[in-house]
Amino acid sequence: MPSYTAPTKDMQFVLHEVLKVSQSATPGYDELDAEFTGAVLDEAGKIASEVLQPLNAVGDQQGCVLENGVVRPPEGFKEAFDQLRDGGWTALDCDPEYGGQGMPYVLATAVGEQFSAANMAFNMYPGLTHGAYSAIHAHGSDDQKATYLPKMVSCEWTGTMNLTEPHCGTDLGLMRTKAVPQDDGTYKVSGQKIFISAGEHNMSENIIHLVLAKIPGGPEGIKGVSLFIVPKFIVNEDGTPGARNGVSVGKIEEKMGIHGNSTCVMNYDEATGYLLGEEHKGMRAMFTMMNEARLGVGLQGYAQAEVAYQNALEYAKDRLQGRDVTGDKNPDGPADPLIVHPDIRRNLMDQKSFVEGARAFTFWGATMIDQAHRAEDKDADGLISLLTPVIKGFLTDKGFEMATAAQQVYGGHGYIEEWGMSQFARDARIAMIYEGANGVQALDLVGRKLAQDGGKHVMAFFEMVKSFCKENGDEDMAEFVTPLKAASKDLQAAGMFFMQNGMKNPNHALAGSYDFMHLFGHVCLGLMWARMAKAALSALAEGASDTGFYETKLATARYYMARQLPMTATHLARVETGADTVMALDAAMF
Amino acid sequence: MPSYTAPTKDMQFVLHEVLKVSQSATPGYDELDAEFTGAVLDEAGKIASEVLQPLNAVGDQQGCVLENGVVRPPEGFKEAFDQLRDGGWTALDCDPEYGGQGMPYVLATAVGEQFSAANMAFNMYPGLTHGAYSAIHAHGSDDQKATYLPKMVSCEWTGTMNLTEPHCGTDLGLMRTKAVPQDDGTYKVSGQKIFISAGEHNMSENIIHLVLAKIPGGPEGIKGVSLFIVPKFIVNEDGTPGARNGVSVGKIEEKMGIHGNSTCVMNYDEATGYLLGEEHKGMRAMFTMMNEARLGVGLQGYAQAEVAYQNALEYAKDRLQGRDVTGDKNPDGPADPLIVHPDIRRNLMDQKSFVEGARAFTFWGATMIDQAHRAEDKDADGLISLLTPVIKGFLTDKGFEMATAAQQVYGGHGYIEEWGMSQFARDARIAMIYEGANGVQALDLVGRKLAQDGGKHVMAFFEMVKSFCKENGDEDMAEFVTPLKAASKDLQAAGMFFMQNGMKNPNHALAGSYDFMHLFGHVCLGLMWARMAKAALSALAEGASDTGFYETKLATARYYMARQLPMTATHLARVETGADTVMALDAAMF
Repeated sequence: MPSYTAPTKDMQFVLHEVLKVSQSATPGYDELDAEFTGAVLDEAGKIASEVLQPLNAVGDQQGCVLENGVVRPPEGFKEAFDQLRDGGWTALDCDPEYGGQGMPYVLATAVGEQFSAANMAFNMYPGLTHGAYSAIHAHGSDDQKATYLPKMVSCEWTGTMNLTEPHCGTDLGLMRTKAVPQDDGTYKVSGQKIFISAGEHNMSENIIHLVLAKIPGGPEGIKGVSLFIVPKFIVNEDGTPGARNGVSVGKIEEKMGIHGNSTCVMNYDEATGYLLGEEHKGMRAMFTMMNEARLGVGLQGYAQAEVAYQNALEYAKDRLQGRDVTGDKNPDGPADPLIVHPDIRRNLMDQKSFVEGARAFTFWGATMIDQAHRAEDKDADGLISLLTPVIKGFLTDKGFEMATAAQQVYGGHGYIEEWGMSQFARDARIAMIYEGANGVQALDLVGRKLAQDGGKHVMAFFEMVKSFCKENGDEDMAEFVTPLKAASKDLQAAGMFFMQNGMKNPNHALAGSYDFMHLFGHVCLGLMWARMAKAALSALAEGASDTGFYETKLATARYYMARQLPMTATHLARVETGADTVMALDAAMF
Repeated sequence: MPSYTAPTKDMQFVLHEVLKVSQSATPGYDELDAEFTGAVLDEAGKIASEVLQPLNAVGDQQGCVLENGVVRPPEGFKEAFDQLRDGGWTALDCDPEYGGQGMPYVLATAVGEQFSAANMAFNMYPGLTHGAYSAIHAHGSDDQKATYLPKMVSCEWTGTMNLTEPHCGTDLGLMRTKAVPQDDGTYKVSGQKIFISAGEHNMSENIIHLVLAKIPGGPEGIKGVSLFIVPKFIVNEDGTPGARNGVSVGKIEEKMGIHGNSTCVMNYDEATGYLLGEEHKGMRAMFTMMNEARLGVGLQGYAQAEVAYQNALEYAKDRLQGRDVTGDKNPDGPADPLIVHPDIRRNLMDQKSFVEGARAFTFWGATMIDQAHRAEDKDADGLISLLTPVIKGFLTDKGFEMATAAQQVYGGHGYIEEWGMSQFARDARIAMIYEGANGVQALDLVGRKLAQDGGKHVMAFFEMVKSFCKENGDEDMAEFVTPLKAASKDLQAAGMFFMQNGMKNPNHALAGSYDFMHLFGHVCLGLMWARMAKAALSALAEGASDTGFYETKLATARYYMARQLPMTATHLARVETGADTVMALDAAMF
C-alpha cells in the first residue's frame, strides 16, 4: 500500500530560500516566518499522512453511492472532513470577517499540495467549497455574504460550481439552463448540469450550488449568462437550512478516477436561485476566480506526481532485481535494488526534477495571486494571468506523464490496483481535462494572454528572465543560466513566429499553441531551477550544515537543464512549421 | 458507445503498395495477392466490428469472476471464442501438419491488429495460446506436438506462459518454482506464478500452461531454468483430457484495465510437468518466440491508439463547440464541429500519423519474421531482433500516449467510463509493461542488440535508410527524404556516442537507452512515412482513381516529418549528456 510524507523541508526551502516570502512587501507576508510556516506545514503534513492518505485507496475502491437521492461518500470521509473543519484547515486563507484565518494564499497552496497529494478526491470537497466561497466573496451582496460565507468558511456548508451541460462544456454560450425572474427578486432555475464535483453528499448540512444560467430575453450566447446561488436547502431568516430546494441528483458518473468525489448530474427544476453579481455578467464573475482555480488544478497535477514519485522511489530502493552493470551494489543479496539501473534513475530523476520545479513554479504563482489581491498590484495580476494556463496545462500534462512514469517503476505491480500506483495515474488524468481542457489552456495562452495589455506581461516575463541571467553572470551559475537563456530564446522565437504569421492567418499561431504552452512551461521550470540552484549555492557559500540537501538540489537542477530543457528546441521546431501540415486535410479526408 | 471499423483499405495499401508482399520471394508470399488478403481482412473486420467490439465494454465492466476455483469470463466471450474457432481464425498462420492454414505471419498480424483493436482483453486468450503453440512447435518432441498442437491450433485447448513470480519479473534468475524429476521422466512442479494472462477460464476444455522452473541441483540463476508443459487436465493416452493436475488459481488480480482477461495468480502444487526442450535451456526456448511475442505487444499498443483515434475523429466531427477563428464552418448550426479548431487537428494528426506509421512498421517487421522463419534468412532474423525492442517499446509508449490524446478530444466525457475512451487508455497501459517493461526493451536494444553480430544489423539498417534516400533523390521525394536523413543522422550520432563512451563506462550508454529507443522509433516511422509517400506518389503518377486516399497519405507524411521527426534532436541532445546528471545522486540522497 502506498504512503505519503509531506515534503515540508522542500516547501520551506521554496518559501524561504527561493521566494523569500517573509521579506516580501505583500501585506500579510511579514507573518510568514520560517518557524510559523514550518509549524503549519508540519501539522498539515500529519493530517495528510495520517488522516487523508489512508482514505485514498478506500475512496477509490468504494466510490460514492447514490441511494434515494442521497449520496453516501466512502467510509471515513465524513470523519476526516470533521477533523479538517475542527482544525480550521478549511478557513486558512479565508476572510477573517467571515471566520477565516486570513493567511496568504501561498500558505494555503502549500497545505493544498499536501492534502491533494494525500487524497485528491477528498480534497475536492473543501476545494470546490473554497471556489464557491471566493465567488460569493467577490460578487455577493452584503446580505449574501453574511448568509453564506461563515458557513462555507467552516465548511459546515459546502459549495459546487455548475457550468457544463450535456451539449456544452468549453462553449458555454450554448447553455440551455434558464433562470426566470420572480416577483420577489428571486429566480426559478431549471435545467441540467453535468460533471458537478461534490454535487451531492451527506457530509455537510447544506450545499451551496453556484449555477450559470440564462435569463430569458437576455443577450444571445455567452453574453447572456448569469450566475446564481442555488442552495440545496433554502436558508431561513435565522440562517438555518430550511425547505428543500428543487435541485436533485440525476446520477453519479462512473469515472476513470477520483472515485471518492461524487461527480453528479444535477437536475434543477424551478429551483429558487439568487442572482450573484450582475445580470448577464456571469462569465465575468467566474473569471475573477479563474487564476486561483486553475492554479489549484495545476497543483493537483504535480501533487499526484509527487506522491507517485515518493512511492516509486521507495520501491526502487527496496525491490531487488538484476545487477548494476558496473559492479554489484548489494553483493550479499540475491540482486541489486532497482535504483542502481541507469534507466530507473533517469525515470526517477525525470519525476523528481519535474515535481520540485513544479512546486516552486506553483508557489511563485501563488505569491503573484497574493500580490494581485493583497497589494492590488496590476502587474502581478497580469503576469499570473499570463502564466495561469501554463501552470494548469503544463503541470497537469507532465503530472499525469510522471505519475505514469512512477507506475512504470513497479513493472507489472504498477498495473495491479492493490499497489495503488494506478490510482495516482487515473486520478491525475482528470486534471488535464477539467477547469478548461489543456487545449483550451493553450488557446487562452496564445489567443488571449500573449497579447493582453499590448503584450506587456509577456515582455515583462522575458525581461525578468533576462535580468536574472544578467544578475547571475558569474561562473558558478553559468551551467544553469546558459541553458535557461537558450530555452528563453526558443520561447521568444516562437512568440515572434506567432506575431509575424498569426496576423495573416491566426491558425499559424493556434496550430502551435500546445507546443508553445509546453515550451513556456519548460522555460518557467528552467527559471525556477536556476533560482533554486542560486539559493542552494548561497546556502552552501554561507556554510549551511545540511550540505546534502543543497548538493542534491544542484544535481537535480543540472539534470533538468541537461535532460528536460532540450525539449524547447523541438517545441520551437514544431511551432515554426505553422498551420500548413496541421490544417492540410479537409475534415472528410481524415 | 465507441465503435470500430477495420482499416482494411490502409492495411491493403501497406501490404501491396508499400511492402509489395506478393512480389516477395519469401515462401508462401505468392499466395498473398490483393484479392485474397482483401477477402480475409474484410471477413476478419466483420468479426472484429460485429462480434468482438461489442463485447469490449462488457469485458471491462464485468471482468472475470473466480468461483470455486473456476473463472467465469465476461458474458458473450465464450460464444465469440466459438465463432473464432469455427471460422478457423485461431489457425491462420499455424502449421498445416497440425490443422493450421499455413498463412504467412504478416497476414495473421493484420488480422491480429483488427481483433486487438476491437477487443484487446479478448484477443489475449487466442494470443497467449498462439505463443504457447509456437513454443511447443519449436521445442516439443514429436509426441508432444502430436498431443498438444492440433488442439491448440483450434483453440479447443488454450495456452498460457508462466514466467513471473512475486519477487521476480525481469530478473528470472531469482525464480523459486522448482521441478523435481520423477522416475517416469515427468517432473513435479511446485511454486507460485503471478500475472498469468488467461490463466484460468471455462472457455476451453483444457489449458496448457508453459511454466519456467528450476530443476534442483541445476546451475545457479538464469542458467538453471527449464521450461515445462503443465496441462490443467493431464492428457489421457487417447488424447482426451483426463485427471485434474495440481494447478489452481490463487486469485484474479484487480487491474487498471484488460478486465476481460483473467490475470491469475497460479499455484503449482506438485503438478505433473513435462520438460519442453532441454534441461536448463528454458530461457533459450522462451527467446525463440520473443520477437513474435513482442511484436504482438507493440501491435496492441498502436491498435488501441487506432480504435481510440477512430472514435475521437467521429466525436470531433460531430460535437459542436466554438467557432472556427477564420470564419464559421457551420453557420446554420449553433457552433462549428470540434475538428475546425487547430489544436484539435494537431491532436488528431498526431494520432493518425502515428497509427498509420506504426502499422506499416509492424507489418514490415512481420515480413522480416516470415523471411527469417520461412526462408531461414539470418539477416532478416538479425534485423528484426534489432527492431523488436523498438517495435515493442516505442509503439506501446506512443500507443498509450495517443490513446490518452484521443481521450482528451472528448473533454469531460473522455473521463466518464460510459463513453469508452478511458478503457482504451487503461487497456493500452499494460502493453508498456508486460512482455518486458519498456525500460528493459531499451536495455535490450542498447546493451545487447546494437552490438549483436559485431553491430552488423544496425549497420545494415543505416545502409538501408541511406540507399532509400539515395534512390529517391528526386525533387518529389525531397520533402520526405531530407527530414528522414536528418533524423537518421541523429540516430547515428547517438549510436556513435554510445560507442565512444560506453566502453569507458556502460552507464553512459544505458542512461541514454530510453531516449535512443524513441529516437530509433522515430527514424523507423520516418522511413515508413517516406516509403508510404513514395507509394502514394507512384499511385498518383500512375493515374490511380482514388486520389483522395493518396493525397491524404502525402499530407499525413508531411505532418509526421514536420511535427514528429523533430523529436530526434531532443533525444540526441539527452543521449549526449551521458550518465553524469543521471547517476549523480547516491541512492540515499534522492
